[in-house]
Amino acid sequence: MKTIAHPLSALAERFKLTLHGDGSRLIDGVGTLNGAGPSQLSFLSNSKYAAQLASTRAGVVILGEEHLADCPTAALVAKDPYTAYARIATVFERLPQAPPGVHPSAIVASSAKVSPSASIGPCCVVEENAVIGDDVFLGPHCLVGADCVVGAQSRLVARVTLVTRVSLGMRVLVHPGAVIGSDGFGLAFDRSLADHGGWIKLPQLGGVRIGDDCEIGANTTIDRGALDDTVLEDDVRLDNQIQIAHNVHVGAHTAMAGCAAVAGSARIGRYCMIGGNAGVLGHLELADRVTITAKSLVTHSIREAGEYSSGVPLQENRQWRKNAARFKHLDDHVRRLSALEKDKNHE
Amino acid sequence: MKTIAHPLSALAERFKLTLHGDGSRLIDGVGTLNGAGPSQLSFLSNSKYAAQLASTRAGVVILGEEHLADCPTAALVAKDPYTAYARIATVFERLPQAPPGVHPSAIVASSAKVSPSASIGPCCVVEENAVIGDDVFLGPHCLVGADCVVGAQSRLVARVTLVTRVSLGMRVLVHPGAVIGSDGFGLAFDRSLADHGGWIKLPQLGGVRIGDDCEIGANTTIDRGALDDTVLEDDVRLDNQIQIAHNVHVGAHTAMAGCAAVAGSARIGRYCMIGGNAGVLGHLELADRVTITAKSLVTHSIREAGEYSSGVPLQENRQWRKNAARFKHLDDHVRRLSALEKDKNHE
Amino acid sequence: MKTIAHPLSALAERFKLTLHGDGSRLIDGVGTLNGAGPSQLSFLSNSKYAAQLASTRAGVVILGEEHLADCPTAALVAKDPYTAYARIATVFERLPQAPPGVHPSAIVASSAKVSPSASIGPCCVVEENAVIGDDVFLGPHCLVGADCVVGAQSRLVARVTLVTRVSLGMRVLVHPGAVIGSDGFGLAFDRSLADHGGWIKLPQLGGVRIGDDCEIGANTTIDRGALDDTVLEDDVRLDNQIQIAHNVHVGAHTAMAGCAAVAGSARIGRYCMIGGNAGVLGHLELADRVTITAKSLVTHSIREAGEYSSGVPLQENRQWRKNAARFKHLDDHVRRLSALEKDKNHE
Repeated sequence: MKTIAHPLSALAERFKLTLHGDGSRLIDGVGTLNGAGPSQLSFLSNSKYAAQLASTRAGVVILGEEHLADCPTAALVAKDPYTAYARIATVFERLPQAPPGVHPSAIVASSAKVSPSASIGPCCVVEENAVIGDDVFLGPHCLVGADCVVGAQSRLVARVTLVTRVSLGMRVLVHPGAVIGSDGFGLAFDRSLADHGGWIKLPQLGGVRIGDDCEIGANTTIDRGALDDTVLEDDVRLDNQIQIAHNVHVGAHTAMAGCAAVAGSARIGRYCMIGGNAGVLGHLELADRVTITAKSLVTHSIREAGEYSSGVPLQENRQWRKNAARFKHLDDHVRRLSALEKDKNHE
Repeated sequence: MKTIAHPLSALAERFKLTLHGDGSRLIDGVGTLNGAGPSQLSFLSNSKYAAQLASTRAGVVILGEEHLADCPTAALVAKDPYTAYARIATVFERLPQAPPGVHPSAIVASSAKVSPSASIGPCCVVEENAVIGDDVFLGPHCLVGADCVVGAQSRLVARVTLVTRVSLGMRVLVHPGAVIGSDGFGLAFDRSLADHGGWIKLPQLGGVRIGDDCEIGANTTIDRGALDDTVLEDDVRLDNQIQIAHNVHVGAHTAMAGCAAVAGSARIGRYCMIGGNAGVLGHLELADRVTITAKSLVTHSIREAGEYSSGVPLQENRQWRKNAARFKHLDDHVRRLSALEKDKNHE
Repeated sequence: MKTIAHPLSALAERFKLTLHGDGSRLIDGVGTLNGAGPSQLSFLSNSKYAAQLASTRAGVVILGEEHLADCPTAALVAKDPYTAYARIATVFERLPQAPPGVHPSAIVASSAKVSPSASIGPCCVVEENAVIGDDVFLGPHCLVGADCVVGAQSRLVARVTLVTRVSLGMRVLVHPGAVIGSDGFGLAFDRSLADHGGWIKLPQLGGVRIGDDCEIGANTTIDRGALDDTVLEDDVRLDNQIQIAHNVHVGAHTAMAGCAAVAGSARIGRYCMIGGNAGVLGHLELADRVTITAKSLVTHSIREAGEYSSGVPLQENRQWRKNAARFKHLDDHVRRLSALEKDKNHE
């Protein structure tokens, strides 16, 4: 595959970075400090890797002023080398190119509105009254259900399912296997049914509204609301296999790591960070800028910004078994402690 | 989209509720107490929301006798307002309408038996000897594998995969991305292989049997049995991203919240409630009417109905770290406590 | 469906087992000790089930020398009856048969190379420069993205998505809903964006390399690397709904149970066993032969082989609540204990 080479001077100018070294050097890719070659760009953002700088073979390194003296090759100085790298690296990304238009194998309802600049891939299905905006990319096997809206420049990579009444903002990126707008899990227990009662399903009449610049990971599920909508504000970033139940509201710029789950009607603030496989119970509220560490379970609302955790530390199994067995009687142990204290005070 | 309006008197009669107010009022939808308008129906089932009753603009409210005096609008009195609401709300649900027949893009094996009243959607694949019952709905991109049976009136919303030897009862609802009948995870470690041994796969020769009125959530996975079948009895309700391993047996009317997981050959009773992201280890048995709270891990069989939990509470991270560090030596702490008690008794 | 019957003598010879009993008996299937009939083979590998041997109706039982005297029917004696059973049982597995060639509904890019012996199923999409090896089976609805390679004899059961730059070795088995090669979750926080900062996405320029004889479960997700590749060595076995983040490296012969998750750049050794819903934080290293029990969270690197755990035991909820409440002040309790000890020593 042909790659395009960019002169260093052009990269420096385009991304407003200060160049030290030969501006005519051509750069055609990126790599780690250890792995990059003479035509590649690397970066140093974590001081832990500073030792690798001296021996790098990279053609240029993005770094902070403080590391400039130690750089054996050309350098691009940035205040925040990591975000500078993130921006430049996109230059070298090869996104699937697809011509505008509808693939002959795709099936588009006559009532759907598809922008002429959108690309609808093989085996896609676009149902009644759906709206596909300008420059949208639908990869193979996507389903855009009835009454769904896909905002301009959004990308559904492949095999994404928007069930019904889902609205995506602009530049939303959805990864394969994601299901958005499926029925919320709403049940009423009817004692008059079956032998000792049974379940009745509550129809899920709401939708899902997703803001601009959101990212939804592979095999993530977002249910639609029971009456009102499930909402993700702008710039929410969800990793893979996340579960968002009906009527959840996620504030702007919040990010969740893989396998996190939020139960029904919970309200997460802005700029929150939810760790991997962390959970939030239903109907709770989390303030802005709350961080939940991995695998923690949030069982009460959180009113103040900060970092919160649950769980116990990993140990060698034999030692852990002893401690875990003691936990089963922790209340008794503390009562025994209190009794000793009381005795002592009475001596 | 056109919605149909129902006179209040007709709703009262059909659902056997006592009407207070003008029976000629037309109702065309449902909403929350706060959100519903004059042509919409709302409900009050949780006393927490009783304060919203006075200011509701809803056309009618389903409520218990005890709240009737406080209702500013028409009322439908029910013993259990929530189940009454669940039943009435289905009147206003707009399910995708699909004509009977096979979409031209679907691929149906000649040995498959498809009821003439079934609707087989775009890009569906129905394999050898599959049986599709009356009034079944298969949304786009479904796969009904060889030897599978889909009972009458079942709905596979979209992109559902039944791999092989899966039997669904009547009125089963399966959401997108669900995979039923995939291989169980059965491995034998063969010390004679590779450098220090390797894995041999056990063929998974069983199937999956799912009863009537079950619901299977988005991206949920249910493996088929190794020799016998994996079984869900009637009216089992599974939320999204649940994992049911091979040879699991789930009793009737049991419900599981999102991301729960049950390991191989476990046997769950009837009327159980398994919380979100809870887990059950393999080969265990749970009695009827067992409730497991969210994120708990069941490590031994449970013989008595009741509520069971594991885990530790969420705390601000700094305080949690101190407590968690102490847990690593909990056994030592309790031994020290015992030593103090012994000393005291010897005094 | 027609099944083929095998004389016992032929099975004994083919799998190098010692036969006791009538070699002309015909065997056409397998079953449990309790369930197998006279034309079926069963096995006894777990002594817990030895009591079932006396009453089995199986035509033949694979067992260890020590159980031969108690066997009421023909026997095949094996050193390791479980692996012997695993091998023989494959004889009775009915895998979907598919003729070589491309199904007329599949869409294959002209630049893709597809072996003439491969079978490409209905609605599959094979993109630019993909390579499909000899005897590969792609079930319905699979996507093999640009620049992906599927090694000889691999089976993608159905609805598998290989996004881009994914390479599968030989005999790799991938179950429905698996997504391999999706974008890693790489974000940089840019304080200059939006009101108080926002996220920039880092392009994910690496791929995924999967060795020979690996198995990937249903709805499992494996992200591609940011710069280097995500790697699974040979004979790695992943159950359903596992999440492997970008740049993870998993050593050969390691197995993970359902819903396990490994965060970015973690390095797992060879012959490890990761329990169900266990998690490994990012950038950690696990030595060879490390076992992590179910639902444990690995928060630090592990240098020595062995078994490791975290969590607390399941209890009846009322008792658990008391203990959990005490955990919130565990550090205080231990300080009180130390104070008592100090007092005693000063007496």
